[in-house]
Amino acid sequence: MLWQRVKTALLLAPFAIAVLLIGGPLLTGVALFLFLVINFEYFYFAAKFPRREAFFYTALSALPLLGALVAGDKGFLPGVFLALTALFVAELVQTEREVHDRTITESLQRAVLGFVYTGLFGSSIVLLVHHTPEGRWVLWSVLVVVLTDTFAYFGGRAFKGPKLAPRISPNKTFSGAATGALCAVLGGVGFGHLLGVPAQWGELAAVSLVVTMFSQCGDLMESYVKRLYGIKDISTLLPGHGGVLDRIDGLVFAAVPLLWIGPWVVR
Amino acid sequence: MLWQRVKTALLLAPFAIAVLLIGGPLLTGVALFLFLVINFEYFYFAAKFPRREAFFYTALSALPLLGALVAGDKGFLPGVFLALTALFVAELVQTEREVHDRTITESLQRAVLGFVYTGLFGSSIVLLVHHTPEGRWVLWSVLVVVLTDTFAYFGGRAFKGPKLAPRISPNKTFSGAATGALCAVLGGVGFGHLLGVPAQWGELAAVSLVVTMFSQCGDLMESYVKRLYGIKDISTLLPGHGGVLDRIDGLVFAAVPLLWIGPWVVR
Repeated sequence: MLWQRVKTALLLAPFAIAVLLIGGPLLTGVALFLFLVINFEYFYFAAKFPRREAFFYTALSALPLLGALVAGDKGFLPGVFLALTALFVAELVQTEREVHDRTITESLQRAVLGFVYTGLFGSSIVLLVHHTPEGRWVLWSVLVVVLTDTFAYFGGRAFKGPKLAPRISPNKTFSGAATGALCAVLGGVGFGHLLGVPAQWGELAAVSLVVTMFSQCGDLMESYVKRLYGIKDISTLLPGHGGVLDRIDGLVFAAVPLLWIGPWVVR
Repeated sequence: MLWQRVKTALLLAPFAIAVLLIGGPLLTGVALFLFLVINFEYFYFAAKFPRREAFFYTALSALPLLGALVAGDKGFLPGVFLALTALFVAELVQTEREVHDRTITESLQRAVLGFVYTGLFGSSIVLLVHHTPEGRWVLWSVLVVVLTDTFAYFGGRAFKGPKLAPRISPNKTFSGAATGALCAVLGGVGFGHLLGVPAQWGELAAVSLVVTMFSQCGDLMESYVKRLYGIKDISTLLPGHGGVLDRIDGLVFAAVPLLWIGPWVVR
């Protein structure tokens, strides 16, 4: 299992790094593709909508991004309202059309959660990439998230100790979270200088700390969603890793502060 | 019951009309107050969060508006992401802290639905009012929604016929929906000229049609939410009407197209 995981990672890493270094429309395109995949993973594999509905909701999740790519930042919000209206109306119609008694409690809430989680938060990744055509800031962000994931995992295995969130994710420990955060901050400063990110070391440390905290929350959020729907992996698209969302769950959250703080830090 | 309803309406109508005619900061203030009330109604009475959590989520729902009032339109979206992040983290923490086994399925989804429904859609009312300081466009919008509600109700009782959405709202009929829509369009054109709304009659008719359709969807949405949580009225704040959300459920949806279409129609 671990070997399968490493094999997949070694296979994908060069492509990921190349795309991040090349940047530009290729990077935006790849980000958009990953965005569509994680949304489909949520709606189809996690929330278990029929395939047709999962495609429909994935398309709705992309509407705000479409608005932003077409009309600039001010196009995002109309996209949000348009998509949510369509989502609500579709669910109302669907509720009436169901022959079997679909639980009235569940369906609309599942759809709304996906729209907000993989839809809105996931959009941040695409917007982050779109606003940073050179990719160096994005590469740095991804590195901080990967450091968090990796060292939280190994730190937890090495130091053990009290559980961080036993009900949501039984394997996580405080020691792991702290190790991940520490290595993310140290690595964030180090890689920041190495990559020539135009920011002070104090700024790099502060942003790394925010990124690692959001990243770990994103990790917990994905665990929560999986427990919610009683699944272990979000999908089986990446052998050894589960789904794409299992791999980038931290980035889904971390992209949010990066998107809003970024312009103030990287000048 | 009907008498109680009429009595409350007759008592509130003069205040409502006065506030709409005066406009300006008073109107924005009243809209903001109603916004907070419908959010609290959702979180406390409908989704049945404890009082303290209901206040917390109501405050989160107001964050995007706060952003917009402080920093202009571009402040809305950061508010959305900030509020959603806080909501997710609060729910994750709460899930771990619960002594009794709070159903992991329910709590976060209920909170997210409220944030999107009374929060984001409800914000449109405040933004609509805020962007239209003179209040005439808002007065016209409210009239079209009231015409929809009133004539859908009486049209349904008069003509009967096939049900519109028996599972969500058993009393609504197609004949009522059509009567409401027709009277909203006729009244929208008539009141538009009477109030001197600066738009062609064709534009008034088209916007009225959109408003009445959104308004009826908003009505169904509120019925859906009430069925979802097994309640008949959202609260008992307005004798004979139920809660504030029961009264302005149509406007919650209708404000969305009015907000985005408005600037193109009313010059």
